[in-house]
Amino acid sequence: MGLTFEIVARDAGTRARAGLLHTPHGVVETPTFMPVGTAGTVKGMTQEQLETLGVQMLLANTYHLYLRPGHEVIRDLGGLHRFMGWPHPILTDSGGFQVMSLKGLGRVTEDGVWFRSHLDGSSHFLTPELAVEIQLALGADIIMALDECVEYPASHETLLRAVRLTGRWARRAKNFYTEQQAPADERDSGLGIRNSQTLQSVKPNPDLRISEPALFGIIQGGTDKGLRRESTEELLEIGFEGYALGGLSVGEPKSETYEVAEYTAELLPDERPRYLMGVGTPEDLVECVARGIDLFDCVMPTRNARNGCVFTSEGKLVIKNARYARDEQPLDPACECSVCRRYSRSYLRHLFVAGEMLAGILATHHNLYFYLDTMRKIRQALLFGQFESVGARVRGGPGTASSIQEVVAESHTDEPC
Amino acid sequence: MGLTFEIVARDAGTRARAGLLHTPHGVVETPTFMPVGTAGTVKGMTQEQLETLGVQMLLANTYHLYLRPGHEVIRDLGGLHRFMGWPHPILTDSGGFQVMSLKGLGRVTEDGVWFRSHLDGSSHFLTPELAVEIQLALGADIIMALDECVEYPASHETLLRAVRLTGRWARRAKNFYTEQQAPADERDSGLGIRNSQTLQSVKPNPDLRISEPALFGIIQGGTDKGLRRESTEELLEIGFEGYALGGLSVGEPKSETYEVAEYTAELLPDERPRYLMGVGTPEDLVECVARGIDLFDCVMPTRNARNGCVFTSEGKLVIKNARYARDEQPLDPACECSVCRRYSRSYLRHLFVAGEMLAGILATHHNLYFYLDTMRKIRQALLFGQFESVGARVRGGPGTASSIQEVVAESHTDEPC
Repeated sequence: MGLTFEIVARDAGTRARAGLLHTPHGVVETPTFMPVGTAGTVKGMTQEQLETLGVQMLLANTYHLYLRPGHEVIRDLGGLHRFMGWPHPILTDSGGFQVMSLKGLGRVTEDGVWFRSHLDGSSHFLTPELAVEIQLALGADIIMALDECVEYPASHETLLRAVRLTGRWARRAKNFYTEQQAPADERDSGLGIRNSQTLQSVKPNPDLRISEPALFGIIQGGTDKGLRRESTEELLEIGFEGYALGGLSVGEPKSETYEVAEYTAELLPDERPRYLMGVGTPEDLVECVARGIDLFDCVMPTRNARNGCVFTSEGKLVIKNARYARDEQPLDPACECSVCRRYSRSYLRHLFVAGEMLAGILATHHNLYFYLDTMRKIRQALLFGQFESVGARVRGGPGTASSIQEVVAESHTDEPC
Repeated sequence: MGLTFEIVARDAGTRARAGLLHTPHGVVETPTFMPVGTAGTVKGMTQEQLETLGVQMLLANTYHLYLRPGHEVIRDLGGLHRFMGWPHPILTDSGGFQVMSLKGLGRVTEDGVWFRSHLDGSSHFLTPELAVEIQLALGADIIMALDECVEYPASHETLLRAVRLTGRWARRAKNFYTEQQAPADERDSGLGIRNSQTLQSVKPNPDLRISEPALFGIIQGGTDKGLRRESTEELLEIGFEGYALGGLSVGEPKSETYEVAEYTAELLPDERPRYLMGVGTPEDLVECVARGIDLFDCVMPTRNARNGCVFTSEGKLVIKNARYARDEQPLDPACECSVCRRYSRSYLRHLFVAGEMLAGILATHHNLYFYLDTMRKIRQALLFGQFESVGARVRGGPGTASSIQEVVAESHTDEPC
């Protein structure tokens, strides 16, 4: 096992829990938010800044690193942790979501998915085995089985097909992963690649085992509870060290995201970590922690920051607006981050208008602080039995009245961004 | 007086000296290198990083800040130090160099210079008085008189005209500056703007005096020693708190840069700081400190960094080169900066190839460290009477053999960049 998971506190009124996730590169306090470091860097942040911000685990994108600089280069250089100078936990996705996002550039088959590189148009074939191989080469602490992620809305037929294919791929991923994890002398170098002629490069390699990563399976099924149940049961039968909810936050109404998260989390074993992929707003974090989710990732804090949209305790703020030209306040007067302690809205606005690199750097720093601080407050509340106070709204379900302004941006003052 | 200047050590064999420059925002140890923060930010660096790097004084560009966000905005927000969150010394240039650089967009008259904004094409008229007014509004610690900077090569006639015009402008700048510095009840609000109809906004304003900046004059004259002498004598007669050498590093041979710097520095009073504008390479810093220069600025470390060209103890290195794809060494194995302690050439190369923000951030950090560290080593050598060891080559004059590799990049291994 690459990781163990201890639950250290639970909320009495919701399914929220606080845990400790032990990985080869350190302990992650859950619930946790993972910033997205697509190409082995969280855009605009140094690794020192990420440490200062209290980032516990980063997400990196298999698809991007496979294409550039190449997983073999990173493996030969000692793995992703060493390559990017980040000695703390890393989770890599399977590459499936990115491949599916390449509209018209990808084609799904039983064996895997054909896709064309967005960089040079070159053709590649990603299989469940190759996705594991790449991630083992990268040496992440948590790796993901290849899934088929479907857009919203989708027909029942499409969802069903994706659920079943994701199940078969999950089994292949698990088999290949198990093979790789076995002592070298027990390995069958052909086993993992039996189904594909294209995977000549996929052979067990003891050198791949930079660490002992944990394999997570990804549950699909859209907003269809029956399919979510089927997908969950299939993955549970295969058995993974953690379970992710994929195919959410792809356009469905927020109430459905929450409902599916809650429904699916209840089907999962208590003792395994649960990861809600690609979610979401600070409010989503609270709502979904209350529904039993432990891990989150989202590009929102970093991408929004680079576009000049910052999260504050009073809502989102579009810093380029002329109204901030002479505003001496920090981005968020209630925030204690180093950006809010030093720089004004007027300066940030100037940097954005002038197209200066520092604009994105400072906004990213602030947004990540806001997300991580929100999560720290949630976890602390869980440890002290006070999640009720931040979770009052959550317990009542979406749309009820009482507020959680202490930790989460209220949407009523949001500026569109 | 806005600043006092103490000389605390001298080299016996050269004109090099170490000093302390007392400004309203702190003491600057000279010789010093000022990173360029064009629009109120050193591109890619947070102010915290600049402090960590040991930056003592920043340069900001009057031209850019006048156009955006506007000096009045910055004045109203408490001045540039407060605006950009930099409580340490700042020097602003006069805007003259930028205006002259706008080929075809500028036109010099006796009264000042017409120019068109590179941002929106709007027409502006910059006079010696307005240049001082803008800089007072910005609230820098050291401000520069407007000069006419001439390209290389230029005819004697062109150089002579620029020297004389620069002299007349320097006198107007000094008069206007003196007027502004006088107690408010002694001021004549019309004095400084007598010569121009376009300067309706130029009126003495007690609020402008955020600090008490020191005014420096700029010596012109190209590579013509006679004209350099004339320009120097004129400025000395007017009297400034420091003297800058402008119009160098504009295309002339390096030997001429050094010769003019040496010749002109000898004409200047020992007790006033000397500033060589826009120079240069790490080697230039040593060469010109040896010739009596105290202050330097240059975009080279920051601009080169963003283009992937880094300075190392073994010469310049173009990090995008394929040869670094699997190079696990730091940018400079001899460097102790935080970038070299954490990141490899292979990672930096990947970041540049992938167009990631972190590429420019890390390279800028390293290059600034290299420059500032070079200057720290020079100053320390001066304090301990060991400048000879780093200055052997300098004392012998350009082109002689003995080396100063300990502190300066050797050019023989340079990659073209």
